[in-house]
Formats: sequence, C-alpha cells, structure tokens
Amino acid sequence: MADTLSSLRSLMASHSPPLHALIVPSEDYHQSEYVSARDKRRKFVSGFTGSAGLALVTMNEALLWTDGRYFLQAEQELSDQWKLMRYGEDPIVDIWMADLLVLALSLAHNCYARCAATRPASQPFMSVGVSLWKNLPREAAVGVDPWCVSLEAAQKWECAFTKKQQKLIQTSKNLVDEVWKNRPPLELNPVVIQPLEFAGRSVAEKLKDLREKLKQEKACGIIITTLDEVAWLYNVRGSDVPYCPVVHAYAVVTLVSAFFYVDKRKLSPEASVSSYMEENGIEVREYDAVSSDVALLATEQLPPFSKHMEIDSSETGITGNGTNVAQEESHNRIWLDPRCCFALYSKLNSDQVLLQPSPLALAKAIKNSAEMDGLKKAHIRDGAAVVQYLVWLDKQMQENYGASGYFAEAESTSKKRPSETRKLTEVSASDKLEGFRASKEHFRGLSFPTISSVGPNAAIIHYGPDAKTCSEMDPNSIYLFDSGAQYLDGTTDITRTVHFGKPSEHEKACYTAVLKGHIALGVARFPNGTNGHALDILARVPLWKDGLDYRHGPHLISFRPQARNVPLQASMTVTDEPGYYEDGNFGIRLENVLIVKEADTKFNFGDKGYLAFEHITWAPYQSKLIDVSRLVPEEIEWVNTYHAKCRETLVPFLDESEMTWLKKATEPIGA
Amino acid sequence: MADTLSSLRSLMASHSPPLHALIVPSEDYHQSEYVSARDKRRKFVSGFTGSAGLALVTMNEALLWTDGRYFLQAEQELSDQWKLMRYGEDPIVDIWMADLLVLALSLAHNCYARCAATRPASQPFMSVGVSLWKNLPREAAVGVDPWCVSLEAAQKWECAFTKKQQKLIQTSKNLVDEVWKNRPPLELNPVVIQPLEFAGRSVAEKLKDLREKLKQEKACGIIITTLDEVAWLYNVRGSDVPYCPVVHAYAVVTLVSAFFYVDKRKLSPEASVSSYMEENGIEVREYDAVSSDVALLATEQLPPFSKHMEIDSSETGITGNGTNVAQEESHNRIWLDPRCCFALYSKLNSDQVLLQPSPLALAKAIKNSAEMDGLKKAHIRDGAAVVQYLVWLDKQMQENYGASGYFAEAESTSKKRPSETRKLTEVSASDKLEGFRASKEHFRGLSFPTISSVGPNAAIIHYGPDAKTCSEMDPNSIYLFDSGAQYLDGTTDITRTVHFGKPSEHEKACYTAVLKGHIALGVARFPNGTNGHALDILARVPLWKDGLDYRHGPHLISFRPQARNVPLQASMTVTDEPGYYEDGNFGIRLENVLIVKEADTKFNFGDKGYLAFEHITWAPYQSKLIDVSRLVPEEIEWVNTYHAKCRETLVPFLDESEMTWLKKATEPIGA
Repeated sequence: MADTLSSLRSLMASHSPPLHALIVPSEDYHQSEYVSARDKRRKFVSGFTGSAGLALVTMNEALLWTDGRYFLQAEQELSDQWKLMRYGEDPIVDIWMADLLVLALSLAHNCYARCAATRPASQPFMSVGVSLWKNLPREAAVGVDPWCVSLEAAQKWECAFTKKQQKLIQTSKNLVDEVWKNRPPLELNPVVIQPLEFAGRSVAEKLKDLREKLKQEKACGIIITTLDEVAWLYNVRGSDVPYCPVVHAYAVVTLVSAFFYVDKRKLSPEASVSSYMEENGIEVREYDAVSSDVALLATEQLPPFSKHMEIDSSETGITGNGTNVAQEESHNRIWLDPRCCFALYSKLNSDQVLLQPSPLALAKAIKNSAEMDGLKKAHIRDGAAVVQYLVWLDKQMQENYGASGYFAEAESTSKKRPSETRKLTEVSASDKLEGFRASKEHFRGLSFPTISSVGPNAAIIHYGPDAKTCSEMDPNSIYLFDSGAQYLDGTTDITRTVHFGKPSEHEKACYTAVLKGHIALGVARFPNGTNGHALDILARVPLWKDGLDYRHGPHLISFRPQARNVPLQASMTVTDEPGYYEDGNFGIRLENVLIVKEADTKFNFGDKGYLAFEHITWAPYQSKLIDVSRLVPEEIEWVNTYHAKCRETLVPFLDESEMTWLKKATEPIGA
Repeated sequence: MADTLSSLRSLMASHSPPLHALIVPSEDYHQSEYVSARDKRRKFVSGFTGSAGLALVTMNEALLWTDGRYFLQAEQELSDQWKLMRYGEDPIVDIWMADLLVLALSLAHNCYARCAATRPASQPFMSVGVSLWKNLPREAAVGVDPWCVSLEAAQKWECAFTKKQQKLIQTSKNLVDEVWKNRPPLELNPVVIQPLEFAGRSVAEKLKDLREKLKQEKACGIIITTLDEVAWLYNVRGSDVPYCPVVHAYAVVTLVSAFFYVDKRKLSPEASVSSYMEENGIEVREYDAVSSDVALLATEQLPPFSKHMEIDSSETGITGNGTNVAQEESHNRIWLDPRCCFALYSKLNSDQVLLQPSPLALAKAIKNSAEMDGLKKAHIRDGAAVVQYLVWLDKQMQENYGASGYFAEAESTSKKRPSETRKLTEVSASDKLEGFRASKEHFRGLSFPTISSVGPNAAIIHYGPDAKTCSEMDPNSIYLFDSGAQYLDGTTDITRTVHFGKPSEHEKACYTAVLKGHIALGVARFPNGTNGHALDILARVPLWKDGLDYRHGPHLISFRPQARNVPLQASMTVTDEPGYYEDGNFGIRLENVLIVKEADTKFNFGDKGYLAFEHITWAPYQSKLIDVSRLVPEEIEWVNTYHAKCRETLVPFLDESEMTWLKKATEPIGA
C-alpha cells in the first residue's frame, strides 16, 4: 500500500499539469455502484472494500470518505496512511470538498438524504469554496479519470473548484491502473439473450418506445452508459459484474439506428446473439469504439445518422437550413443522463446535450405484467428456500450446539460444542442457504454477497463474512442474514433476524421496535408524487420513541439511489428494511420487497391518485423475538395476516416436515 | 396595469444594456418575506397579493409563479396580461428558470420541500439551462435590482444563466419604483427599546457572544441585513413592516465596533434610543450609508476598523505582514449570510467573504429562559382571548343566526337572519377577536392579518377577508380562523376550526383526520439532527390513509423557511398545523405552537440525544367535530389530557361564565 501511494504520487507529480490531488471514485466506466474486481480501483488504493466511498490522494494525505453503514468496516480495513472521514458525523468543516463528496456518496444507497439531515447548520455546501481553499493551494489541479465519474459529479466539482481558481483535470490515462500490479484480468463472459416470456417486451417494442420519447423531446439520439439499462433495453444478460446479470457495454440509439458497444469476443461462440442483434437492427461495435462514435455523433457523421436527418426533417417539416435556431438546435439534441460518464459528455458540444434522466431508468423501474408476474413467482421460490434454510439451521443449532431452538425461549446449553466436521460458521451456513436457492427453478446466482452475521458482526451493517476469519454460529446470540438471488424471472432481497436461544428483553424490545417500523412503512398510503425517501421516517418513528435509530439511509427508494426526486409510481418495487445496530453487541434488520400499487382510498384529494404497498417477500418473523405487549391491535393483526399468507403461498414448495415447522412459526401471536 | 407593463418594458428597452427580461421578486431590501406597502413591488406590477411569488416580465410576456397555497388567490387577482405558473403542479418543462424560481419560492414558507417532492422525474433542475434557452434568446440580459435579491439566489441564477451565455444584470435603479405612480410614502415610525426583562440578554452580552463566534471563524466582521436579526441583536423594536415589530435597518459588527444603519428621523424625539446605542458602543449611521461603509469595510478603512487590526493581531499572534497567506486571508474574512442582499455582497471581494448562515439566526431561534417564559405567558393570555372569542361568537351565532350552537349537533334554523346592525361578517367577527386580544397585557398588535373564513373561503389557505366583500357568518358552515398577536413578551399563532350547526359526517371525518395528524406530529420523538420538515409527513399520513392531503408545505420548520438543513434543537419553537381544504366547500386547519425540548427516551442510540415537543397553545378542539370512533385510545387520551391542561391554564384569565363554557368544551371525549 505504501508504495502504491508513493508511485501514485510520483505519477501525479509527473502528470502535465502536475496534480495536487487525485480523486479515486468507487465507480467503473459505467458509473456502477457494484463493479468487477478489475474495476475496484478505490479498494485497491485504500484497502476499503465497502461499496460506497470516495478516495482522495494528495501529496501528503490520503483520505477516504464513507457513510454510516461503513464506519466500523472502514476502521478495520484502512491502513495507517489513510484517514477515515466519517461522512455525516464529522463536522463538515473537517471535510474537504463537501459538494464533491456528497455527489460521490449520493451515488451510493441514499446516504445523501441522511447526510443532509445531519449536516451542521453552520456549514452549508455553499462554504465548500472556503473548505477547499483551506485544504488545497489556490489554483490547485485536481485530477480524475473522466471515465470513472459522472458528468453530474464532474460539473458540480468544476463549479466548486472554480470558486478558488482550482481546476478539475481529466487525466488521459487512469493513474491507478498505471500503478496497479497484478490487476485482475479482463473476463470474457458470454452475452446471453433474456427470453421474451420473462422480459415481457421485445427489443423492437422497447426501441420503438424509446424513439417515441426521443421525438417528444426533439432529441435525435441517446447515449446509454448504465449497465442495467443497456441490458434491459436489448434484453441481454451477462456476468461481467459479480451478482449483477449485466455486460460491460454501452448503447447509442438514434431515431433510426441502434448500436451495441461490447467486446465482440463475448458474442462468439454464442452466434445467436449476433444474429439476434442483426434481426433487431442493432449494429454491434467494439467496446472502445463508443468514444470515437460519440465524437462522430456530435458532428452527425455517425452512419446512418445523416440518413436520419432527412427522414426526421421530412417528419417535422423543418427545412434544416437553420431558419429557426431554437428548433434547429433542439432538433439535434442528444439525450444524456446526468449519470452518463464525463468522458463521453466531453466529446459533445454542450449546446446539443439534452441533460435529463434516462427514460429507460423509469421504464425499467415500472415493471410490465410479465416482469411483475415473474418477480412474484421468484419471491415465492426464494421464500421457500429461506424457510428451508431456517428449518435446517434450527435443527443444526439444536443438534450440534445444544440450542433450545427457534421456538423455545429457554437458555441454550452453552457447554455443547460440535466436532470440527459438524462446526457451522457464518459462511458455511450461508453456503447452505445458497444451496437451497440453487435448487430452485430459474436460479442464476446470488444478487449480492450474503450478509450472514452472528452477534456483534450483525452490528456491521454491510458485514461480509470471510471463510477464514468469520465467526462460528452461536446458540446464544442473534443471527442476522440479508441475502437474495438472481432468478431468470426476478431478483430477490430479504433480511431476517433470528435467535436460537433465549433473547434478552432488550433484544426483544429492539426487534419489536424494528418490526413496528417495518409495518408502519408497509401499510402507508400516499399520494402520487411522493418520494420514497420521504416515507423513510415512518420506519424510524417507532424506534425513535425509545431513543433508537439506525445509521443507514432510507432504503425506500424508487429504482436509483440517487434519484431522490423521483416520485413512487404504481408497479415500481422498493424495499422496506428498518434496523437497529448496537456496536459490539448485536444487529437487527427486517427486510421485505414491496411493490407500489394503486390504493383504494375513500377520497382522492387533488385527483392525484393514491398509492399503497404490497409485500411480495414470504418468510416468517420470529414470534419469540416479538414483545406482543408493545404492538397495537392493528400491528398484531398485520403480523397474523402476513403469516397466514406465508403458509398459503409457500405450501406448494415445502415438504411435510418443513410445512409443520412453518405452521408453528406462523401461529397467530397475541391470541 | 397595462401601462405599468408597457412603461416597464420601455425602461427595460432603454436600459443599458437593454434587458430581455426583468425579475421582480417579492422581497424588500432586506430579503423579508413580509414587506411594507412601499416595498410591495411584485404586488404592484402583477396585482397578486400573496406573500410568496416571483414575477418575470419579458418584452411579450408577464409571468407570475407561486405555490399551492396561493393558486386560487392568484387566479382571482392576476389580470389577463399575466400568466399564472403553478409551481410544483405544472411540469417544469413549462417553467422558465426552475432554479431561479425554486430559490425565490423557497424563501417563502417551505414550499421548496413540497416542490422537490412533486417535481417530475424527467425534469431535474439540471435542465434549467435548456428551459432557459428555450424561452429567452441566447445572451439575453435578465435584469434585477441587486438590493431585492439575496446573494444566494443571485449566484444560483448567474450560474444557471451562464450555461447559455445569458447574463444577470444588476440594475442601478429599481425599474419598478421608476414607473410606480402614487407609491406609498416612507413611514417614519419610532424605534423603541425592548426591555431587558423580555429580551433576556443585554445588547452587550449579545455583542460579546457574536464576537466570540466571529473569532472562532477567524472573521473580523459581519453584515446583518435581516430585519428580525438586527432588532434581536440590538434589542430594539419598530413598526416599519405591518405585523412585524421591526425597523428598516442594517447592522455591521466588527470585533471592536458596531454600526446601526437607520433613518435617524426614527430616533428623534425618542432621544433615549440614541443614548442607549451610544452606551452600548453602537454607532448610529444613516440607512443609506451602509452601502459606502461596506465598501470601506472591504478595504478595511471603516473606522475604527484599522484599530481592530492591531488588537486582533496581538491576540492571534499574526504579524499581519502577510507571511501566512491562508491565515492572513481568513483573518480578514467578513461573515455574510447567504440571504444577505446581493448589492452589499457585490461590494466585497469574494475571497474575503465567509459565506455561511448568520449565527444570529440560530441564537435568536433558541429561546433563552426569559424569552421562553414570556412566550409561554403570552400564549396563555392569547388562549384566553381565543376562548372569550369563541364564547362570544357562540352566543352571537345562536341569538342572531338561530345557530344550534358550539355544543349542540342539531341543524341551525336557517330562516333566522339578523338585522343589519347585528349582522356578523368574517371581518367584523375577527375585529372582535382582535378586541379580546387587545384587552390583554403587553398586547402590541396582530402578528399577521387574521384569516377569518366561512365555508368555501376556508378552502383558500391564505384567505384575507376584505371588509367590503367578505362573507357573512353562516350557522350551517365550517368557520376557520388563523390568527395571532405580537405581545411584548412573545408572539402567538393559532388556528381553530369550528361549526355552530350540524357538521356533515364528511366534515367530521376530515376534521378527525386533521386532528390525528396534528397529534401524531405533536407526540413525535426524534434524534438531534432531524430536520423539522422531515417530520412533516407524520401529520399527513393519517390524511393520506383516506386519500386526503393539503397543499401547503411542511410548516414544522425551525426558524427560517429556507433553512432546510437546520436540525431542530431544544428551545426552538415550531408550528404544528395540518389541514384539509376542499375547493368550493370548506377548509379545516388546526394549529398549535410547539417548543422543542429534550426527550427522556429509554435509550440514547448514538448518544445523539432525543427531542420531543411541548404544546404551548391553549384552546379547545371542538369535540362535536371529532369522530371518536376514528381515534385510537392514545389519541383520545391525548385530547383529554390537553383539554384538562387548557382548563387549569386558562382559569385565572376567564370569568365564571367563560369557565363554564370552557369546562363544557373540554369535557372528556370517548368516555
């Protein structure tokens, strides 16, 4: 690490112009939050493995910002040369470049809202100019690889920097890659076609819809850099990024043409993909060609771009000889999402850019009936796997660890310890969970690294157990698991917290408070136009009542962590996952996936239409951990109704002994 | 109006440079939301009288933006030449200069949060560049009087404009004033001193605190343009702005000097003020001198500024010969609030400006014990006046209008109509309310124009009844009154909604939903660091459950509408005022003032400390309008406890018959 920083600094010094600071974002060339091993540049330089963070290297300092979810983890992972900047907790005055930071972090799950909520009054972002100038020399040059940063972030930084004549420098190469020895090799995973029965809409239909939107906005083309949008638009899947079924690819779509930029070695031998693309009028080009093609697009030389000009002008009746400047200009506009990578934006003339969120993000977020149907089915199979895991784990804990078990509230016999061969760890247990999922139809892999955490580890919000170092299961501690899978017909994400011995009154009180928040959010009704993150507080109020809280930001988001101002809409999915984490002791989290649906309210003020949620995750809450005396009748009724639905829904997927266990686990509470 | 616009346009054309557009904000030279008649420029040009709005005049259009609170009112008041832009409802694509607008409106009560919540996903602020350029020619010159706009707004506008090479032009004169015939004259109301027993802290103490803060920030001075901050700092009051006890004045405070810029004619004959200022080391200077003095301040020539240099350098050990640039610069920093007027900011070198919220805003918001004591006492006297008003009104409605009365739920005899002399209107009724308040100790006037509204008028959120045109009281309609007073020891603000006949089930259902929201917000507990507006949703959820909502933004604000990121702190005051408004039918609102206090939570997660609210407003809710079947036991208990406190608290201020009425009005519900 030491010589990584020093060689990085010598590259910064020899760079022209010499760099006073280098920004190392977490994102890859597509501004993804989760990236391939080869793209984990921020992890490589800092050692910090969390998904959200920003590294800044100057000549004499190395700083790593992250948000509350990762404070504990970062402390453990950062070396002495690195300084941890606790975003949202340390006063902003100690922070370099608040704007820069917020943008970087706001790309990660929701931390922005929380940071804003706790930002000291005396230090609004406005003072960033001052902060900057306090920490970096006047006219400092701050370098960044323009492929690793969104234009939204880059523009904000440039604006903040210019206040003190500091400059954002686009490095021609990625300096981290230059100093990265044994960088993981490029993987050449095959591109596969997503069957129409699961996609719901064909590429042809999606391209038609997209071109309609382009015309509405008087745009002639759009550049798509977000991996999940490219995969969704072209109905293709891949495995270039762990846990994400995507391909490293870009898409450019004009009114009459469509391009797919991908390493062509990923198409062969899968010849069907090439013909599939050809049938759908999509031209496949090499991944690196996107750079020069966008430059051509800027000057309308991208074939068959010129053709489009005539067609479109005939449609719109614009002569194209520039009599109407406004229309002429808008007529040439190229749609970019603010998240589009800065490098591609820089190849365009800012006047021709239509800067607004990609229409695909919203289109993708609003599930069509086939997608919704698949999603519900996937969640049922997944719920069955989770129940099978609990049944298995309950048995193991009793037989091997003398646990009193999932149902009994007696102390476990702490003496009993299993033989090495029967030993269970956080990792070996979650491997079994993966096994149950893998046995289900359409399983394609996990949707994120399983969080399987015992006792104090459960307090580390994004804990990732390591096979060598992870904890052994403990019959006298809380066990939290947050996991999900990619199925051909849908992606799941569920968290349950259980105890196989005698939970303390405090643990029960906390579990119950979390459950109350989980319910309050789930039963909410709200008008169209409401932002998901505005509802987050509903999950916290029950915890706040007892002086409890959790550090992760609102997870009730529409479809993009940073799309704060996007109202929830029917057929979107969100997660409801309040938690409580007591450092060094235990952690509790309950998470279900919800779909947004129309609510049948008595009135309809403002004719806005009102919305509500429907739970599609199926697995029991542990009755033993619920202090029924803390629930109001409505909450007790909700739990019993949900548990009854669990039974009905999962019965086709469970054997008799599993159903016996589930029936017991879902017996009415408060009766 | 027609020739106002045309003469304005000819001034715009003859201006150098010629202006393509002129921004006419609502604010005065101190960026106040509520301004004197003489400063109502936006009202003069547009005819719209609401407190929040922004006018934009171009060569061929006249546009007025306002938020949901004012849509109905604006429709009624704007002439044909004006186009109403419904902020937060019309898609942003139809709006010019979203940034500009949001900033202008966010100065008004809380509309920002709501606008953000409802902004269409496809049109983030980022697209403002495009919107602009679609509506104004390239390189357009947009004029504004720099005294009428905050530097925060101006900087945002400049930034948005430059994207399309448009320019924000500071007009040397106010063009509206130029064309304003019969503009109201300058009033010369006397400046009075606020007694120490009510202020709680002396000017000397406040200056000492302020200078401590200046030193902490390495600032040498601060410019204060906000009227309430000047009045608070110097413990002076005035009556230059209706309903606000303030003086048109600026303050400049350095580490060793203090200046009070005011029209000196307001000090004589009140000679005591001059000597008071002198005793406290405050130099009184003419109002207009602030402009040249700030210019001097910029070059450190403002006497006794030079003196301070030595003193401070001896304190800080800085030689002052510029060996340390960073410290040297920070050592000269002048503290400006982002709300400071752009004209004064423009006289400083941006490098010497410390741009962050004024420390006075927070100091003023956190009430000291004397202020808190006075505030509570004022609310008790005010509550008594409200009860006396209800008793009187109940009698009038029964005797003159055949109303069944406040308590009876029977139909009123609609036939009975009073003689002209005994007729009661919205205005004559509220005059009586003012009378009851005026009879109370320390009364100094109303704190805002009383909203006294019958039936459909109650649906106009900021309805201001006019003596000539206002409605007559109606024994069969809901009556809403929102009012408050300035007392020497505190300012009040209360809203109650009553019915003297038989309310419909729908009216009762709506009243109960509003009450549930009012209670939910009032009983909330939350960690330090929570923003008031984030809690607003708690007041809405009970309404949303039935598909009801209200258009005004969150009113649960700390102390400044635009201070969104300021966390609530103990000893701040907020208002809890959910409502429901049915256009053309009726409106319901319940409003109490709450103080923020420490909460004794069982735990204290993150050692943040938890907060709760205490109601200090005392007046009954109308039991007849409460559908008890819709309340949970906790809510019923809350109402009964609050009503019991009302009785105890108000008994010393009511006569026997009034207490008899109050006892009946506060009988336990749900018994």
